[in-house]
Amino acid sequence: MLRTGSFAKGFHGMNGTVQGLKKRISVAKSESPADLVLKKGRVVNVFTGDMQERDVAISDGVIAGLGPDYHGKKEIDAEGKWIVPGLIDGHLHIESSMLVPSRLAAALMVNGTTAIVSDPHEIANVLGIEGICFMLEDSRSIPFDIFFMAPSCVPATCLETAGANLSASDLLELKNEPLILGLAEMMNFPGVLMGDEQVLEKIASFKDRTVDGHCPSLSGRNLQAYITAGIRSDHETTVISEGLEKVENGMMLMIREGTSARNLEELLPLVNNNNSRRFCFVSDDLHAEDIRQRGHLNFVLKKAVNLGLDPVTAIQMVTLNPAEYFGLKDRGAIAPGYRADLAVFKDLKDFEIFSVYKDGRMVVDKGELIGFPLNKTAIPPGQPKPLNIGPMTQDSFRIPHADGKARVIELIPGQIKTRMSYEKVKSEDGWVVPDIKSDILKLCVVERHMASGNIGLGLVRGFGLKHGAIASSVAHDSHNLIVVGVSDRAIFTAVEIVRDMGGGLAAVQDDGKVIAQVPLGIAGLMSWQPLNTLVKQLKTIKNAASDLGCTLEEPFMALSFLALPVIPELKLTDMGLVDVNRFEIVPLFLES
Amino acid sequence: MLRTGSFAKGFHGMNGTVQGLKKRISVAKSESPADLVLKKGRVVNVFTGDMQERDVAISDGVIAGLGPDYHGKKEIDAEGKWIVPGLIDGHLHIESSMLVPSRLAAALMVNGTTAIVSDPHEIANVLGIEGICFMLEDSRSIPFDIFFMAPSCVPATCLETAGANLSASDLLELKNEPLILGLAEMMNFPGVLMGDEQVLEKIASFKDRTVDGHCPSLSGRNLQAYITAGIRSDHETTVISEGLEKVENGMMLMIREGTSARNLEELLPLVNNNNSRRFCFVSDDLHAEDIRQRGHLNFVLKKAVNLGLDPVTAIQMVTLNPAEYFGLKDRGAIAPGYRADLAVFKDLKDFEIFSVYKDGRMVVDKGELIGFPLNKTAIPPGQPKPLNIGPMTQDSFRIPHADGKARVIELIPGQIKTRMSYEKVKSEDGWVVPDIKSDILKLCVVERHMASGNIGLGLVRGFGLKHGAIASSVAHDSHNLIVVGVSDRAIFTAVEIVRDMGGGLAAVQDDGKVIAQVPLGIAGLMSWQPLNTLVKQLKTIKNAASDLGCTLEEPFMALSFLALPVIPELKLTDMGLVDVNRFEIVPLFLES
Repeated sequence: MLRTGSFAKGFHGMNGTVQGLKKRISVAKSESPADLVLKKGRVVNVFTGDMQERDVAISDGVIAGLGPDYHGKKEIDAEGKWIVPGLIDGHLHIESSMLVPSRLAAALMVNGTTAIVSDPHEIANVLGIEGICFMLEDSRSIPFDIFFMAPSCVPATCLETAGANLSASDLLELKNEPLILGLAEMMNFPGVLMGDEQVLEKIASFKDRTVDGHCPSLSGRNLQAYITAGIRSDHETTVISEGLEKVENGMMLMIREGTSARNLEELLPLVNNNNSRRFCFVSDDLHAEDIRQRGHLNFVLKKAVNLGLDPVTAIQMVTLNPAEYFGLKDRGAIAPGYRADLAVFKDLKDFEIFSVYKDGRMVVDKGELIGFPLNKTAIPPGQPKPLNIGPMTQDSFRIPHADGKARVIELIPGQIKTRMSYEKVKSEDGWVVPDIKSDILKLCVVERHMASGNIGLGLVRGFGLKHGAIASSVAHDSHNLIVVGVSDRAIFTAVEIVRDMGGGLAAVQDDGKVIAQVPLGIAGLMSWQPLNTLVKQLKTIKNAASDLGCTLEEPFMALSFLALPVIPELKLTDMGLVDVNRFEIVPLFLES
Repeated sequence: MLRTGSFAKGFHGMNGTVQGLKKRISVAKSESPADLVLKKGRVVNVFTGDMQERDVAISDGVIAGLGPDYHGKKEIDAEGKWIVPGLIDGHLHIESSMLVPSRLAAALMVNGTTAIVSDPHEIANVLGIEGICFMLEDSRSIPFDIFFMAPSCVPATCLETAGANLSASDLLELKNEPLILGLAEMMNFPGVLMGDEQVLEKIASFKDRTVDGHCPSLSGRNLQAYITAGIRSDHETTVISEGLEKVENGMMLMIREGTSARNLEELLPLVNNNNSRRFCFVSDDLHAEDIRQRGHLNFVLKKAVNLGLDPVTAIQMVTLNPAEYFGLKDRGAIAPGYRADLAVFKDLKDFEIFSVYKDGRMVVDKGELIGFPLNKTAIPPGQPKPLNIGPMTQDSFRIPHADGKARVIELIPGQIKTRMSYEKVKSEDGWVVPDIKSDILKLCVVERHMASGNIGLGLVRGFGLKHGAIASSVAHDSHNLIVVGVSDRAIFTAVEIVRDMGGGLAAVQDDGKVIAQVPLGIAGLMSWQPLNTLVKQLKTIKNAASDLGCTLEEPFMALSFLALPVIPELKLTDMGLVDVNRFEIVPLFLES
């Protein structure tokens, strides 16, 4: 059963009551003063493509009327500014930012975003329904709309230990929550194509809702099969021809421009006057540093317009289009009866934010957040809890040496794919030891959900560490604890530190001294801190990794994908090394 | 309480079950044969505007896959034909056709229509919820989708006696019916603008659904007020500037091209590449003869394309656009997972129908209906019942003469508006008598819902009758019995005839001889007959009216609007003469 209450925020205006309507009608007729009027801004009309100077009169958070000469208890001059519907990101994993929902909301809001649709896939893999309830709970009572899709693929695979297993009937319970709009990206496209009944049951349960897709490179008959199941979007497209085929067959194409995957430039030529209603811009994964540096959808708008897209078409792709796709009837446009969610830009070229309004209240003024309840996020008593790791010692991380070559995971710079290489490895007293010169280091994945004691042991090339170890509790998709290091002592200590923080990132010297740590106390995935604090912490720990000799710019991001057994070629889970192409556990050493 | 069962037809494919999905996926992959494949037709893609030759593979009534070389248990050659999504009429009053829903469905289907959204406003004014339940019931088990909007304005006014009164709570009960999509056209725009709480309560009850509008000539602050209430469409627009203002403010503009109102030519220049998604074509009122002569939306497509509209844009306006507006997720496009509702045209210029498929079954072949359950509509025992009219005699229709001029209703050719003129009228023995030379005839409205005995008496100019009387139980919006005639005997007999048929049309000579009659046994509005029989009956009775001297081409249509007290200037209800501009009952004779 769900452990969260029902929500005040639904699809519709807060004042959909008779008295609310009555007041709003009176404001629209100029018989009563509006609560607020934005005066003389150039209102971007997503229905017609026009931009006209109009006053926007607001009553109880909803747009009452548009036109000349509205008056209100409060009036704000918007002359020379461009008023755009609050931006909507149709696909975003909150956890990737390492910020809790309310903190992420604050961070996105200054960029003009007023609503996101998120898939709590990561926390669901750790804490199941309870984790989703935390996300729902933390999304409440803030001036920002966070909608959710029910995670469709928990656990992601059977080759790792996850913290939860969400069946179709679990998901059906979620369906009753007003903030849950549909079924999240169906990553298990092989399951769909094979007609896996458990997978299809999830889709069937959401047949009257929006069902999001995830189908990189799928085409031809397989794409037909995937879409015919009722899946209506994709955000994994990277190539023009792929995008065209998906749009032709009825998918809403979500062009992704996030931190690790950026497909805008490649896919933008697909968008034209005839088909633009079938496109959105989304982020998928967005890191804290990136939000701080680039912004959010405002950055995507700027980039798209710079690349030649018509500004209103671009704006439609982050307002009306996602609103229509998700059935958010009172969002995505500036018109009477729509929520007064507004992003006010200085221009439609650089898309620099001037102010933002949510439900008619100013929340960003001259680019600065105001009146956002930042004190909301207090750590509840008894939190965080240490990770649930089985008994271990330093010796738990020893790897017996064998004859023959070992399978080594090779990082590929800038990609989440890895290569599998076969190497002779160094040993001492019958145990494998790291080979700093050849950059072959120990990689370990420690099960942290049920204290099973599972530890996957492997070798990785590409981090460049000369000393110590770095560890993280962010490791897709099951988020077991992953650690790479030069000495068992450092590895062991790093694991202990992350465990005791209740999850997070750690950098440890060979002598066991902790030189940096970032607590991620919520499921080992998210911090209680606001954006700026977190970004500073992340910078510190990345510098620490660099001090240990690490040559990667984003060592923790690289680490987080090494346990993901659905991306080729060689990965490591708590169950052992996974040959992804064969989709099975393989021994470290080749049988000689 | 609703007296109808729940419905098998919902928003989604019949095979949204796991086994249905499994089978469809297998067909999409060409691992199983489709039930049916339409081979090599040019498929119109409403997402991209393209038209490509593709096979359409169908499984259990749903499109499984599109592409080359699909094979099925049955294959039909469509080479050289144009395959279009089944046409959808977003606003149509079934009762205007005088056909019951299932008969109308058959009549529309041969024109490529597979779904309509109707407002059962007329029958609701006569029979209330029971009437709506009849409509729902008769819409079941036919290969055609009839959706309904809950009638928002029953009764239409307080200046007439209606058969029912539907409150917000009555409408809320309807909301649970899967075939009810939202709230029907809010004709009471003065009520909205005045903030009438009963009116707003109806809108508030449907705030999470589609709420249709009806606001002829509304603009400026009043339009803002009407839209801010949550009303999202209009089909009463007649002028370009009016349409532009409505679209700019977020309304779905339903361009009406029906029997009595035809706005296509005037409004089409409004549609362009930037805004076309905000337009539909609808019929509103469509008479049986018109369906037989012109067709339905196929005629509108032909006309729009002839006027220069891009064919695919035109097609979107009767497929994808209404489907999106009403949230019909699996209709309005040809794509995997969508219902196999298909209209196959010989070309995209004349839009001549070749065949029609509903849920993957052929229902029209070479323009002829096949396999449609025409024997469905049998008259239930005990039906029709005589109309519930109070005791009356021939003398009930006498009008006492008074000094001074009388208010006379003047027909305006081709319009439903009338003029009020002031005339000296003829009398005999203190009673008003018709003046055939001046064409001033008696018009009477007999209350027929509750046997109140109410009879409204007035005078009308414009019918040109030289003998007898014609009577009808179709009289907007309360559908009391209306009769125009030259002699009281003919008037009385015509009323008796219509009463005893349980409603219908009658033409009677001065000697009381009935020369033609059309039974409309369902609520006095609709016939049990199929299209062709009804059209013949209507032709006969119009000839009869002509034989009586009537100079109007559509005498019964003219009659049907004379009791509508919301259209200026002078109308007649069972309560008496209505001065519409003053919105009050006035005496026949001016106080001298």
